[in-house]
Amino acid sequence: MEKRDELYRGKAKTVYTTDDDNKLILHFRNDTSAFDGEKIEQLDRKGEVNNKFNHFVMSKLEEAGIATQVEELVSDTESLVKKLDMIPVECVVRNVAAGSLVRRLGVEEGLTLNPPVFEFFLKNDALHDPMINDYHVVSFGWATAEQIEKMKALTFEVNAVLRELFDDAGMILVDYKLEFGLDGQGNIVLGDEFTPDGCRLWDKETRKKMDKDRFRQGLGSVVETYIEVAERLGLKL
Amino acid sequence: MEKRDELYRGKAKTVYTTDDDNKLILHFRNDTSAFDGEKIEQLDRKGEVNNKFNHFVMSKLEEAGIATQVEELVSDTESLVKKLDMIPVECVVRNVAAGSLVRRLGVEEGLTLNPPVFEFFLKNDALHDPMINDYHVVSFGWATAEQIEKMKALTFEVNAVLRELFDDAGMILVDYKLEFGLDGQGNIVLGDEFTPDGCRLWDKETRKKMDKDRFRQGLGSVVETYIEVAERLGLKL
Repeated sequence: MEKRDELYRGKAKTVYTTDDDNKLILHFRNDTSAFDGEKIEQLDRKGEVNNKFNHFVMSKLEEAGIATQVEELVSDTESLVKKLDMIPVECVVRNVAAGSLVRRLGVEEGLTLNPPVFEFFLKNDALHDPMINDYHVVSFGWATAEQIEKMKALTFEVNAVLRELFDDAGMILVDYKLEFGLDGQGNIVLGDEFTPDGCRLWDKETRKKMDKDRFRQGLGSVVETYIEVAERLGLKL
Repeated sequence: MEKRDELYRGKAKTVYTTDDDNKLILHFRNDTSAFDGEKIEQLDRKGEVNNKFNHFVMSKLEEAGIATQVEELVSDTESLVKKLDMIPVECVVRNVAAGSLVRRLGVEEGLTLNPPVFEFFLKNDALHDPMINDYHVVSFGWATAEQIEKMKALTFEVNAVLRELFDDAGMILVDYKLEFGLDGQGNIVLGDEFTPDGCRLWDKETRKKMDKDRFRQGLGSVVETYIEVAERLGLKL
């Protein structure tokens, strides 16, 4: 598979076309950003760690029957994926209150959410990814009602698989963000990535933060902690 | 019915107990506020106009089979209502893009929303009434899933009745906010108020603003325009 043109450069990944119209290459860069790109740093090995972490988690989800775009690792920092027509919303599940939920609703960080909370956000940097709901998604044509139900169901299926995976490895899956797209047949497929950049993970005993909050909050040892998460899951880096 | 103690003083209404445990008196004051109470003015006759306007609209909704808390006018500025255990959320329907939706989603004011958009907001001044969704409502115990479905269904029933009422009188019902509560039997009943303070109304031909945006935006003739709305509906003030 030959890498061709740069299709899109995101804050932490670059997407390339390939000589197969139905396949793309994701390049995980070392760039690490927070606060709508206001804080950006290069973190050594992060691209490699996230690329392999994402492949590992997506493979676990595939094993559980959830369709993902991931095909195979093609280098330390690159993965071959199916080309999807991405739906411009982020699907968030929160098992425990943290981050923007705490600020918006004035609840305490660490509060268990029972049942877990699902939120949609519009992917739009200029608008700072505003929270939206099902009605906005349908009315503005970002997805159909059926696609919404499928995205929600898949996002909660992912929750069932990954809560257990992280729990078995001594971690709490606090919250995470997923993005979906449509394949050539119109099926909803999990795209983008699942890495510690896009979720919150806490140590079960100490509640140590093991995700991008280490970077946002200047706690240090960002990539080292991502590697610790991977190793606890059984992934050798 | 004797008015007794002040139970609650809101930004534009004061609620009193009565000698009947199941009844309250709403006093519509002349206070007019915007931007979380940052702009407050006394507008002559507004209490009277809103009290009578609310009674008129609630009566139309009752005639259409929608349960409301309104019982009867007891003075120019006061209404007797059923006591409800209020659910701490605002139910908003938007038929046309305006206000916070325009700011949040970067869409043009005046865009027709098809289908109309429903939004929940948490009633919490300190948090500036944040937008929430069904999952927050259930997870934080503000209402049950069944109560959510009932509130949504009632809010859209109100839309069917009032869009036609205003359309027949040459106005567009752009958006509005409703609040519901539970009566002694646990039924969901429409409470609070429906007045030009809590909705947007535009003249169908000229798109003249005929609601509290006249106050927010300093357009003048606030109460005079509310009276024009009432008179177009056939309510003599």
